[in-house]
Amino acid sequence: MPESRRITVIAGGVGAAKFLQGLLSIYPNKLVTAVVNVADDFRLHGLAISPDLDTVTYTLGGRVNPDTGWGRAEETWRVKDELERLGGQTWFNLGDLDLALHLYRTQRLEEGATLTQITLELCKTLGIEARLLPASDQEVRTQLKVQGQGWVDFQDYFVAQQHNVAVEDLRFQGMDNAAPGPEVISSLEECDAIVIAPSNPFVSVRPILEISGVTDVLRERKHDVVAISPIVGGAALKGPASRMLEEFGFERNSVGIASLYKDLAGTLVIDEVDSELSPQVESEGIRALVTDTIMDNPTRAAALAQAVLAEFSAAEEEQQ
Amino acid sequence: MPESRRITVIAGGVGAAKFLQGLLSIYPNKLVTAVVNVADDFRLHGLAISPDLDTVTYTLGGRVNPDTGWGRAEETWRVKDELERLGGQTWFNLGDLDLALHLYRTQRLEEGATLTQITLELCKTLGIEARLLPASDQEVRTQLKVQGQGWVDFQDYFVAQQHNVAVEDLRFQGMDNAAPGPEVISSLEECDAIVIAPSNPFVSVRPILEISGVTDVLRERKHDVVAISPIVGGAALKGPASRMLEEFGFERNSVGIASLYKDLAGTLVIDEVDSELSPQVESEGIRALVTDTIMDNPTRAAALAQAVLAEFSAAEEEQQ
Repeated sequence: MPESRRITVIAGGVGAAKFLQGLLSIYPNKLVTAVVNVADDFRLHGLAISPDLDTVTYTLGGRVNPDTGWGRAEETWRVKDELERLGGQTWFNLGDLDLALHLYRTQRLEEGATLTQITLELCKTLGIEARLLPASDQEVRTQLKVQGQGWVDFQDYFVAQQHNVAVEDLRFQGMDNAAPGPEVISSLEECDAIVIAPSNPFVSVRPILEISGVTDVLRERKHDVVAISPIVGGAALKGPASRMLEEFGFERNSVGIASLYKDLAGTLVIDEVDSELSPQVESEGIRALVTDTIMDNPTRAAALAQAVLAEFSAAEEEQQ
Repeated sequence: MPESRRITVIAGGVGAAKFLQGLLSIYPNKLVTAVVNVADDFRLHGLAISPDLDTVTYTLGGRVNPDTGWGRAEETWRVKDELERLGGQTWFNLGDLDLALHLYRTQRLEEGATLTQITLELCKTLGIEARLLPASDQEVRTQLKVQGQGWVDFQDYFVAQQHNVAVEDLRFQGMDNAAPGPEVISSLEECDAIVIAPSNPFVSVRPILEISGVTDVLRERKHDVVAISPIVGGAALKGPASRMLEEFGFERNSVGIASLYKDLAGTLVIDEVDSELSPQVESEGIRALVTDTIMDNPTRAAALAQAVLAEFSAAEEEQQ
């Protein structure tokens, strides 16, 4: 694809951050926009925490913990250790460097700045040239109905309970009143290519898709959309995506992902180990692109991004 | 004074904390209550910060920075340094250990605990046997009318501007609706002796006195009240107390303090260097007790506490 096309990526946390890092290593950064999930956001100790935005910001700013894919490199735990001694809640593991960002964001929110403005400020400070857009500046909060527990907040499910429980239902509180963040819709309408990153389709991608107007654009632009499956060999590389596929009645593999995205994307990228699933994916009405999707280092992430760019070029040529 | 009497101390920050530390080193801790100023409290980065309560807590819990008299010993600045790199506000100098306490307090407030409950929890955790009572569980906020600036919040005046500006007026926002904290009034009514600690009379003591009911008890019990002047040789040992005396039309020495407290205390403790002010203090209608009031180490603080206890004993014998 010529290096003048604008690309918008629909992004959750770790998987999206790795893909973006790969893409930005081979493509003009200023042409890339990421619309990032905010439905994982929550308040703890009074602080406004945005886990997906933070993961993407730390990764693209070159400050992420390379071992986990989230949190800060060279992190220390001076505050958390003391909080533990005081009898406070430490289940979320707030590191000292990470805390500084939450203090910054919370203070700026209280001063009246929007999450979008704050994100752009942080990108500028951290030298990130790609554009990161929170999906919404309003509060959207994922809740899961957990067997035997009723509705629980996302971070309770995901971090405190380590998503090790059965989910019966899903909802996004505040979604009805949430407007898309500034430039979210225009970034999807005006770009040349859209990527759905290999993020959890239920709790990372869907809360972006459900923001008013987003799904409409994707449906209309289906042939400019490439989705990357987060499932490899029947399992998610991270998190509860494969388990959730089954819990919500889908096949626990990339065919399940295909049936979720078939109306929104022209192509689904699936991993080489799942190549035999290609016919089933394509029978859902979505082209299957088989390539290496495991991004365990920046070189492999760049190769995946390269494959996605090649797919857009092929689609462009086909349309001409 | 027999070691069975209950003592309640009206307390601000550093001066009060040092006096309490001295008192607790020579007296049964369980018989001592401190009613602590909360009008310096504020929110920063979304966190609930209570500077006077923290200073007293850290001092009595053996964790205060011995060089400053406030903040934590062995403090580190990992979060603050990163916050500075992110372009955040760092004027209040939040240390890592100190932050842990603010995170704890903020979280507990959001869970519905009162400031009094939280303070008692922290005392238990830090092994403090004396009872610390916030003057109120409601929000009271000191504001100062600064020449050329209008009304500013206390921490802006005190920390950001280092109280290096002329004050024209003083007010306590929220005071009309602030109820005394649980046991505040009963601790003053039922104790055997009341001490007004050597704290700033305008911004530390007065916001306690103005809490509904407090001044009434002191007036009634005037002869059970000993106040300690925070002014030595015409200057406050710390902070703007002496400057404020002049700004509010009082003599800039312990005679000014006497005229502030004459209806509330039977005795005013003044420093040896001010012994020649005794007659003027007593002409205000308050007994002058001359002793060493400089608490630059725990031994001197204990000696001051001993002198105050002796004064109560003398008053008791006189009344018999």
